[in-house]
Amino acid sequence: MRYFITGGAGFIGSSVCARLLGANQDDSVTVFDNLSFGRESYIAPHYPNPRFRFVKGDLLNPEEIRAAIQGHDFVFHFAANADISKAMTQTDLDVKLTIVATYNLLEAMRLAGVGKIVYSSGSGVYGDVGTTETAEDFGPLLPISLYGASKLGAEGLISAFSHMFDMQAWIFRFANVIGGRQTHGVILDFINKLKADPTRLEILGNGKQSKSYIHVTDIMDAIFFVVECGSERVNLFNIATVDYITVREIAERVMAEMRLSGVKLSFSASDRGWKGDVPVVRFDLDKIHSLGWKAKHSSREAVDRTIREILESRL
Amino acid sequence: MRYFITGGAGFIGSSVCARLLGANQDDSVTVFDNLSFGRESYIAPHYPNPRFRFVKGDLLNPEEIRAAIQGHDFVFHFAANADISKAMTQTDLDVKLTIVATYNLLEAMRLAGVGKIVYSSGSGVYGDVGTTETAEDFGPLLPISLYGASKLGAEGLISAFSHMFDMQAWIFRFANVIGGRQTHGVILDFINKLKADPTRLEILGNGKQSKSYIHVTDIMDAIFFVVECGSERVNLFNIATVDYITVREIAERVMAEMRLSGVKLSFSASDRGWKGDVPVVRFDLDKIHSLGWKAKHSSREAVDRTIREILESRL
Repeated sequence: MRYFITGGAGFIGSSVCARLLGANQDDSVTVFDNLSFGRESYIAPHYPNPRFRFVKGDLLNPEEIRAAIQGHDFVFHFAANADISKAMTQTDLDVKLTIVATYNLLEAMRLAGVGKIVYSSGSGVYGDVGTTETAEDFGPLLPISLYGASKLGAEGLISAFSHMFDMQAWIFRFANVIGGRQTHGVILDFINKLKADPTRLEILGNGKQSKSYIHVTDIMDAIFFVVECGSERVNLFNIATVDYITVREIAERVMAEMRLSGVKLSFSASDRGWKGDVPVVRFDLDKIHSLGWKAKHSSREAVDRTIREILESRL
Repeated sequence: MRYFITGGAGFIGSSVCARLLGANQDDSVTVFDNLSFGRESYIAPHYPNPRFRFVKGDLLNPEEIRAAIQGHDFVFHFAANADISKAMTQTDLDVKLTIVATYNLLEAMRLAGVGKIVYSSGSGVYGDVGTTETAEDFGPLLPISLYGASKLGAEGLISAFSHMFDMQAWIFRFANVIGGRQTHGVILDFINKLKADPTRLEILGNGKQSKSYIHVTDIMDAIFFVVECGSERVNLFNIATVDYITVREIAERVMAEMRLSGVKLSFSASDRGWKGDVPVVRFDLDKIHSLGWKAKHSSREAVDRTIREILESRL
């Protein structure tokens, strides 16, 4: 199989790339990335591998993606705007980097006859529905962030292309994906702040935000598991842990792993970190569980492992 | 109130424009239209009215929309790609004319401090779910056309802007809207074909496609009714008739009104008119009915009235 990974130098994409190259000696992998969020160091170890190819290119340039995608069989689409909070001041980021980029990819796939796509969507499509456990068929879908809105738009485009042009898609609505290679997010933010000043930690929001955090190894297991058994034209799955962890608990885990005590925590009055942040996220996981898949790490275990991975990688 | 209507020279937009100008002598209306689908003849009668203004402009040009929208209070957003079947060969139309255009409008509203928007979405967001009666909270939303996908993306953007930037939105998922001013659609198609050759009529699909057709006067009633009583940040409503009519019946109604007999009908084997066409559409209308609103015309009455309006306007 000839795989093509958009955002393949990023946190999740580079992890999928490594796993694909390790799994089957007949498979080849092309990483397509503009290195805006991705890091060349995440893929450089594969450069000597003749089954690996890196194309530095931009999904907003249709010619680049159309040329690069020729001759592939299967696309993993991870490229997207990864900085959710920036939309408050730069409202065009998500529309361009998530919706238009996804359209350009789908059109390139259509023109090149590439028929299969895995897409990483997220809980943002569900909007802010409190403690409601959202299943895949939850509605109405009224996102409160441009991040969520653009993921919803991209899902719709993937569904339409699949039906109109005989493609097949696996769409995953992931919880917060974490791991040592993450390039942004609350854990990295706390570690960086505490390295800069180990006496105090400013927390965005009141610290009670409560969500599922899933380790990247678990979401890779889920992706490959679902692609094997999901045979619909469009396969849609929530992927999360069964438990949840608050931002305050994450801060405490970071301080414990960094062996810091007496850190002065400060919170803001808001229940959320920024406009568009959904403070409480709850998934209904019956669909994926009924197929026999469960996350190996709890949210707490995923957070602990990620903290250690980040601290070790930066020793 | 200072109203702003995108697509205001089009079929639905020009009808809303006329109603707004007639309703309250303190209101003013600006029509913003690139005249790609709209017709100047639909708004020209208002040119002498000092409360009316026409701006020939394009939502794909951010400068044009940002300049034009200054000083308005309330937006009706009807501009969109209106030719659904073209997406099979021109896949970029819906992404540009519906998603990117809606983003440009919302960003212009944010910059100008315009806080209220009515949006015309459609049943296409629900995908192809057979005879399932879809309520507003139906899911999953897996459109089978780029038309439906782009309406879904636009809904998401409107919801996100509303939450992030304190706007208020009324989103309508309309059945097939028909009336004498329609510029495309099955009724007009049949009339044009029969005028060209009254002996035969080619029908796209097997004729059994069955949907709700609602007269434009009913959807205007619904819009103004819902804007009065829908006080959520984002108000989402299905608007349709309770009955349905098949494409074959529409053909028979057109032939009867044109007083044609012995017309040789030909059908294609497919259950649908084109890739992306949803052959059977069923709405759950409990939400709007519970507020006390119902369509005055049945689908059959709406079709008959529309046929007469089209025939009379072209005598």
